[in-house]
Amino acid sequence: MSILVVGSIGIDDVKTPFDERKAILGGSASYASVAASFFAPVRLVGVVGDDFPKKFRQVWADRDIDLDGLQTQKGETFRWSGEYSYDFNSRKTLSIALNVFEHFQPKLPDSYRGTPFVMLGNIAPKLQAHVLDQMEKPKFVMADTMDLWIETAKSDLLELLKRVDALCLNDSEARELTRETSLIKAGQRIMDLGPRYVIIKKGEHGALLFSRNEFFTAPAYPLEDIHDPTGAGDSFAGGIVGYLAGQPKIDFTALKKAIVYGSVVASFTVEASSLDRLCQLKQADIEERYQSIKVMSYFDDVNF
Amino acid sequence: MSILVVGSIGIDDVKTPFDERKAILGGSASYASVAASFFAPVRLVGVVGDDFPKKFRQVWADRDIDLDGLQTQKGETFRWSGEYSYDFNSRKTLSIALNVFEHFQPKLPDSYRGTPFVMLGNIAPKLQAHVLDQMEKPKFVMADTMDLWIETAKSDLLELLKRVDALCLNDSEARELTRETSLIKAGQRIMDLGPRYVIIKKGEHGALLFSRNEFFTAPAYPLEDIHDPTGAGDSFAGGIVGYLAGQPKIDFTALKKAIVYGSVVASFTVEASSLDRLCQLKQADIEERYQSIKVMSYFDDVNF
Repeated sequence: MSILVVGSIGIDDVKTPFDERKAILGGSASYASVAASFFAPVRLVGVVGDDFPKKFRQVWADRDIDLDGLQTQKGETFRWSGEYSYDFNSRKTLSIALNVFEHFQPKLPDSYRGTPFVMLGNIAPKLQAHVLDQMEKPKFVMADTMDLWIETAKSDLLELLKRVDALCLNDSEARELTRETSLIKAGQRIMDLGPRYVIIKKGEHGALLFSRNEFFTAPAYPLEDIHDPTGAGDSFAGGIVGYLAGQPKIDFTALKKAIVYGSVVASFTVEASSLDRLCQLKQADIEERYQSIKVMSYFDDVNF
Repeated sequence: MSILVVGSIGIDDVKTPFDERKAILGGSASYASVAASFFAPVRLVGVVGDDFPKKFRQVWADRDIDLDGLQTQKGETFRWSGEYSYDFNSRKTLSIALNVFEHFQPKLPDSYRGTPFVMLGNIAPKLQAHVLDQMEKPKFVMADTMDLWIETAKSDLLELLKRVDALCLNDSEARELTRETSLIKAGQRIMDLGPRYVIIKKGEHGALLFSRNEFFTAPAYPLEDIHDPTGAGDSFAGGIVGYLAGQPKIDFTALKKAIVYGSVVASFTVEASSLDRLCQLKQADIEERYQSIKVMSYFDDVNF
């Protein structure tokens, strides 16, 4: 089944301890849509300026991503520039220019309204809600968010949470949103706010998945070297919803596998800048890494 | 088979955000020996002062731990006092008095020399080596260590590493010892220093196990509340070697299970102060939590 991905689309300058890349394709929707495209047909909703390079558009076209929902507006594309610390544990935004993104109003083509799976990539919760307003009863909706919205648009975010099946956020955001130190408690508290499933990302330490009655602790794929972590979280989320869109049944078992597939796609993303590694990726590469995560995290026979 | 546990034995004052306990049993050997005793017969090597309470000695006696290697010396027992930050992420030592521990020389009773399994709990690497000097070819030796020895006794530690099968240390210590940011690289670098197996502890994020050709990422048991983290690492290490001592074959498969059992025992330790929870623990509690970690970390059928 198809998946609708909405989020930011940007042109990034990224400095890491090992590399400096200018004017590369970035943004939550860029990563999430390509990640999801390995598993299901994707429809992209976003906005770019009239300066947006044709080669970036080609990245999506090569993945057969439907671009009917991509608006091109007069002006410049959203720009972001950031720098990572020597150990990749922190990131500093050097500059940001919203440009055409400042007045972005996601507008869905009629053909998108019935899309069964929805990935609300990291943008203002009000815009995420505006997408849902235009949709006919989707089967599964996941939202990503960030500290900025918890701090500046908390009531919008709380409204949105009542309308999503799953929320995906990182550990510090989960703590900030709930004021709970324990991630186990934080995950449970977030379910009280609406989502049936909560996914807490822990970077190199994997992720936690919560539902009312079940719990899953997902390992991360062990990488010796990280080239550029930008887009890891967006690829993770895109991979999750993409995988689910290809499944006959959405339950905890499917969610668990989806999270591992999401981790796998994210592990490839960070091996290069921008979408460079994802553009080279084959289905077999994903499958191989998925199987190897299994080998690296199982410790005994299965006899539940 | 039997396991010899050596390490510190102390009387602790511990302050946590929720509790303050004075004059409780502590020390690396105290926790490691009791943790190991759930899996195999334990022989304890350590030193206490003549002020050491009888009730603490009884804790080990109740677990059938052999105390022939426990020296009682004139003077006071080692004392430590510490305080945890509100989220348990950092710990401050408020005071320390080595007392009889200052001139501790582990001396093995003749009956201990042939012990096949050895857990060198966290004490100066020179003392850990001195224990090995007195032993006849043990089958498996694991050492724990800490930042203090990496900083003040690095050459002793490097000498010791050539003589152990496994080293157990936490993530920041692994980074400090190897000067590698990536834990995956750090684990591999430590194997170059001698140990066939390296175990990197990541607290609430679980642990990593390395051998030359295999890798295992172990989840931690998810706890809603931590009461007192003191002794978690020692219980983990004691549980690991204890479990191994009960196995017919020591290989990567056994090590993986051992690490999960070690995590389980540590998860009980932190639910109460001192050894309070471990003293109440039943074999069935351990087995139940081991099985539930499996349920919480497996995500697909086994078809390697």
